[in-house]
Amino acid sequence: MAERVIIFDTTLRDGEQTAGVALNAEDKMEIAEQLAKTGVDVIEAGFAASSPGDFEAVRNIARTIRGPIIATLSRCVPGDVEAAIAAMEGAHNPRIHVFISSSDIHLMHQMAKDREAVLLQAVAAVKRAKEAVEDVEFSPMDATRSDPRYLYQLLEAVIDAGATTVNIPDTVGYTVPQEFEQLIRGIFENVRNIHKAVLSVHCHNDLGLATANSLAAVRAGARQIEVCVNGLGERAGNASLEEVVMALKTRNDQFNVELGINTRELYRTSRLVSDLTGIVVQPNKAVVGLNAFRHASGIHQDAVIKLRENFEIMDPREVGHPEATKIVLTKVSGRAGLKKRLEELGYELTQEELDRVFVRFKNLADKKTEIDDRDLEALMSEEARTHEEVWHLERVHVIAGDTVRPTATVLLVDKDGNRHEDAAVGDGPVDAVYRAINRIIGVENTLTEYTVKSVTEGIDAQGEVIIRIEANGRTYTGRGADTDIIVASAKAYMNALNRLLVLRRDRAEQRIVVS
Amino acid sequence: MAERVIIFDTTLRDGEQTAGVALNAEDKMEIAEQLAKTGVDVIEAGFAASSPGDFEAVRNIARTIRGPIIATLSRCVPGDVEAAIAAMEGAHNPRIHVFISSSDIHLMHQMAKDREAVLLQAVAAVKRAKEAVEDVEFSPMDATRSDPRYLYQLLEAVIDAGATTVNIPDTVGYTVPQEFEQLIRGIFENVRNIHKAVLSVHCHNDLGLATANSLAAVRAGARQIEVCVNGLGERAGNASLEEVVMALKTRNDQFNVELGINTRELYRTSRLVSDLTGIVVQPNKAVVGLNAFRHASGIHQDAVIKLRENFEIMDPREVGHPEATKIVLTKVSGRAGLKKRLEELGYELTQEELDRVFVRFKNLADKKTEIDDRDLEALMSEEARTHEEVWHLERVHVIAGDTVRPTATVLLVDKDGNRHEDAAVGDGPVDAVYRAINRIIGVENTLTEYTVKSVTEGIDAQGEVIIRIEANGRTYTGRGADTDIIVASAKAYMNALNRLLVLRRDRAEQRIVVS
Repeated sequence: MAERVIIFDTTLRDGEQTAGVALNAEDKMEIAEQLAKTGVDVIEAGFAASSPGDFEAVRNIARTIRGPIIATLSRCVPGDVEAAIAAMEGAHNPRIHVFISSSDIHLMHQMAKDREAVLLQAVAAVKRAKEAVEDVEFSPMDATRSDPRYLYQLLEAVIDAGATTVNIPDTVGYTVPQEFEQLIRGIFENVRNIHKAVLSVHCHNDLGLATANSLAAVRAGARQIEVCVNGLGERAGNASLEEVVMALKTRNDQFNVELGINTRELYRTSRLVSDLTGIVVQPNKAVVGLNAFRHASGIHQDAVIKLRENFEIMDPREVGHPEATKIVLTKVSGRAGLKKRLEELGYELTQEELDRVFVRFKNLADKKTEIDDRDLEALMSEEARTHEEVWHLERVHVIAGDTVRPTATVLLVDKDGNRHEDAAVGDGPVDAVYRAINRIIGVENTLTEYTVKSVTEGIDAQGEVIIRIEANGRTYTGRGADTDIIVASAKAYMNALNRLLVLRRDRAEQRIVVS
Repeated sequence: MAERVIIFDTTLRDGEQTAGVALNAEDKMEIAEQLAKTGVDVIEAGFAASSPGDFEAVRNIARTIRGPIIATLSRCVPGDVEAAIAAMEGAHNPRIHVFISSSDIHLMHQMAKDREAVLLQAVAAVKRAKEAVEDVEFSPMDATRSDPRYLYQLLEAVIDAGATTVNIPDTVGYTVPQEFEQLIRGIFENVRNIHKAVLSVHCHNDLGLATANSLAAVRAGARQIEVCVNGLGERAGNASLEEVVMALKTRNDQFNVELGINTRELYRTSRLVSDLTGIVVQPNKAVVGLNAFRHASGIHQDAVIKLRENFEIMDPREVGHPEATKIVLTKVSGRAGLKKRLEELGYELTQEELDRVFVRFKNLADKKTEIDDRDLEALMSEEARTHEEVWHLERVHVIAGDTVRPTATVLLVDKDGNRHEDAAVGDGPVDAVYRAINRIIGVENTLTEYTVKSVTEGIDAQGEVIIRIEANGRTYTGRGADTDIIVASAKAYMNALNRLLVLRRDRAEQRIVVS
């Protein structure tokens, strides 16, 4: 029987280390739920000691999500390990993942420690973690640039200390497949007690080789792969969930392993993570890119019509890619038709939610002739984003152009139903809208990113605005969709501000104790 | 001595097959010039028989560009080969690249031919091409799903017929590194005359393995790799130029080969191709993504400050990445400072160009406190895009919001200096602007894509609008940058329309004969 390869998703930890990304507790929970639905085996939910927010997120996810193991990262220092243990209290399936650098370059230039000291520190951390949880993972950071003989010693020691998974990170994305395969084989041959642990790998994509390196490790016997949705992560990111899974599945003749992944959720997972992080997926991204199943050349199109397998090795339906099902709704579509299509897309709505979405659907259908799956996903995304508002945008109006000073008027309603109206000028109409909103709400922040894309083609397309703002070192993402780009921008800004305000309120209400 | 690996760039052929991309002759020339500057060995400039436009583009590039070999693709059918030969007349370094399917699945379901007929057709095409040019490349399409024994026969026959390069395409992106390496080794072992040709590979990225498969082939002895800038191409695209080059360079200890690439041009090449095709590069794209050299975690940042090599295996300067040099200009910067920085960024300007750019720079500096390299690149891109206008946008004005019917007024000036003013209402302010412009110019087209991003961070950021319109089956990309998103949108639309009009005028003036 084929052996199972464990898929360990670290979107919420390494993925969140993507420059410019910061997810709040609510975002993280939503992603964790979707990852559980996708069938990943392990979710690394965060780095408990890194911030009170991360601590809370890890704890809530570990207590809420059923199915996958929930892991938290921890340095091999007592404070970190205690925070990890505290975050895992009451968890259904806890794992503590401790790491320490093992390469001489890191030991000398970063930590100023010798190998023996590092080994003792690693063993101590594993032992302490093991007192609290059965499932302990250990990673020697920068393993691919470490002396293999030292790596063998270190792994042997931590397995003796109780580590049940040992993970080999290519921290700097330096290795190439043949070399990495040899490293993994070397570990199997030289670490006496290696059969007592699962061997895992964690590859970065700096040279575009993260997926290939992960597969090479599987060939050598690794049985856990660490991945991120959309290949997010530090710098050029980690091995991407969708590529690793679909390569192992499509070419199972070469790997002969089993996976617990529900591949039909891969596209939706990709889309959710892109929405919440604000990091776009390029059209030519493998598996989940918009073009991944599109054939441009006439020769290819013709051949695909004759027989799909002529130019496609995967069926877009297999990963839930919208290219598979271009179904279109119009303004005459009823509530039942909308509900049915949304269910087919995997959205389960309460009656109240359906009512709200149906109003939005009808408003959109008045402006736009055909509404396809991407529009519906934008609507649902908008619905999901707007369920809690401290401030509500009632009205926005602008005058703009190259011969006038752009001027905006906004009317906002606060929680108590009071109406506030103000106006401002700006460098452009969006700037003017933001300044007018700032005059009313008065929360200091910096706009760090602003992107707009049309959700579907055509002049009547919906514009989808994604913005990111920074306040007190945290980033908040806001989203808004409308056929009017100015209205969409105003919605996106209000969305980001509301998220900021909800988070601040929640924090004020929480008392977080990190040991 | 290390052997040279030939870098064959097919951005202008397979890359242009990216769904939604269509480059005009001017775009193609600009990309070809930049590829030559980057030092690629071969530029596949197009598919001469596919359209009169492609024929012209190939011919012009082959006659203009010095340095690289210029190739044109051709099916193994007489009409195609004659078009290829005609396009190569007067070329400095011509190559004709003929291809035909070799897999049984394609033979049966697409071509309805037997193996013998295909072999004869391939040999005939190579022989005819060889009468016209010395340098002939042959590709058996879908090679990785072909019977290797048939592949050996076919390759032997075309090399005997005069092929100097034989290319093994993984057309559907199906293979994995170990398998591909074996296929290439099998060819070296079983094709009698293989030493008379260069063995090339062409990998697609459907499973995220294009770079790794290309490197595996180099290990087996392949000495040409076919790539696209930013990994563009059909579906999930081709192996990406920047990944293949930087992997071979950074890990030359593993490959021991030489390259002729000037890596410092890689980032600029990526940026130019992204601008002209309108296909975004995701931030976590290896080598050329915005985040490729950004460290988000505090642990990493600290370590990089202590010693760059702690977490970076490549120096961002090595690929010309802007992360390397965050130099900032302000409104008090003079013409000399601007000129110097632009030269450092690789832009050589005439006095007249500098004058124009300086005016734009000053206008921008009035609105924006700090102007960094990305702003300058946006300015230069804008300058490059706007040098020929059939219609000029003189003024644009809008009223918009959720309580008014969005209304736009535009004033355009035609070539003869006549002023035309009109107004229109729309679903949103951008739609209204486009409708007002349409009333004056009256060119039928469909807006197929609309994206906006801020070029730099902050509330005073420049908005950069990229749109694509379709008319008569062709796509035109337009770009506009302004602090006012509506003005940027108007500029982008005018830019696309002007490109369409210039192309139509040029075509009307040309007489293209394709045999």
